[in-house]
Amino acid sequence: MREEYQADLVEVSRLLVTMAESVRAALRKATSALLTADLAAARSVIERDSEVDAIYEQVELKVADTIARQAPVASDLRRVITALHIGADLERMGDLAEHVAKTAARRHPSPAVPAELRPTFKGMAEVADHMAEKITTLLAKPNAELAAQLETDDDAIDDLERKLFKIMLADDWPYGAETAIDGALLGRFYERYADHAVNIGEHLIYLITGETTGQIED
Amino acid sequence: MREEYQADLVEVSRLLVTMAESVRAALRKATSALLTADLAAARSVIERDSEVDAIYEQVELKVADTIARQAPVASDLRRVITALHIGADLERMGDLAEHVAKTAARRHPSPAVPAELRPTFKGMAEVADHMAEKITTLLAKPNAELAAQLETDDDAIDDLERKLFKIMLADDWPYGAETAIDGALLGRFYERYADHAVNIGEHLIYLITGETTGQIED
Repeated sequence: MREEYQADLVEVSRLLVTMAESVRAALRKATSALLTADLAAARSVIERDSEVDAIYEQVELKVADTIARQAPVASDLRRVITALHIGADLERMGDLAEHVAKTAARRHPSPAVPAELRPTFKGMAEVADHMAEKITTLLAKPNAELAAQLETDDDAIDDLERKLFKIMLADDWPYGAETAIDGALLGRFYERYADHAVNIGEHLIYLITGETTGQIED
Repeated sequence: MREEYQADLVEVSRLLVTMAESVRAALRKATSALLTADLAAARSVIERDSEVDAIYEQVELKVADTIARQAPVASDLRRVITALHIGADLERMGDLAEHVAKTAARRHPSPAVPAELRPTFKGMAEVADHMAEKITTLLAKPNAELAAQLETDDDAIDDLERKLFKIMLADDWPYGAETAIDGALLGRFYERYADHAVNIGEHLIYLITGETTGQIED
């Protein structure tokens, strides 16, 4: 029974790693679609989001099945319930990558992001990509120190978002309301993606230490 | 055991109803803060969001405790796991009300929303309020027909959001980028609040009928 339970957990982890890899690939491709006005890339991200949703459903079924068959208690129960939360965060990260892709597709063939904002979005996407990479590593092998680094990454994302707003709110912003609105919403998509990555780090720290840092991002 | 399990479910429902009432009150007050530039109201919403978070923690503990003690299976297990998802949606609705309040507070003493946009936000807030009211009713007494109405309400919110964008993107929009950015982000907060209400409706329909409509909002 104990052995079976461990096998169940390994299967759940494997599904979560697959989700994490997918949402990392989705944001990379969505960013490329955004910065190079690549419609085919944008469409591919939009189409493939349902794959992430389908794996999340598998996580939910596997967790329910594990609880029903193994009746875990205490830290064992905490572990499988945490997997559900992590799956929900990853599913949402996939949605946010899709939102970036949809913005790129909607403005095609024009670029959604003017030249002045491109380096900032490139920076946000790079940090977000490192965060998704850390999540993948952490899901395979939890590590409180690496999980805590996600907080620092998130601060970098927040700084870049502030920079974005500073550029758009300058008196000499030449692009008008529509481009500012797209810029603000896109900034929020990257920032929320990072927030969910931080949440996952928090869930993993909780699993490792049994303590929350009270930092779940809203 | 069966009786104890029912008592556990009643307690979980009671907590969810309290959360639903809180996030409904929060958005009402945040909207009032937004439309009347009322700093005290905005601050009160911001301060009280932690109360919603605290009830959500109680939901999580109660669900874990119920699973550990009662080892529910099949539809009983589905019921308690769904309560977790509903709690997560409600917690996020509280965050979104807080975001509206924060926008009002940040722009105080100026109004964050110019006169041209106020009727649209008032409309979005009214529909969102009806949705939160339905959630409260549904949590006390599930009803698939009432839950399905949340979809129609959500369509109304989406229409109002489109109207909002149409006003801000008109050639004669006189307010510049900052007000357009605030308008777009605020529109998104109301729209996301409604999306989470729809998700809750979906979860409740699933509990009642055992079927998903595949409509979970992203």
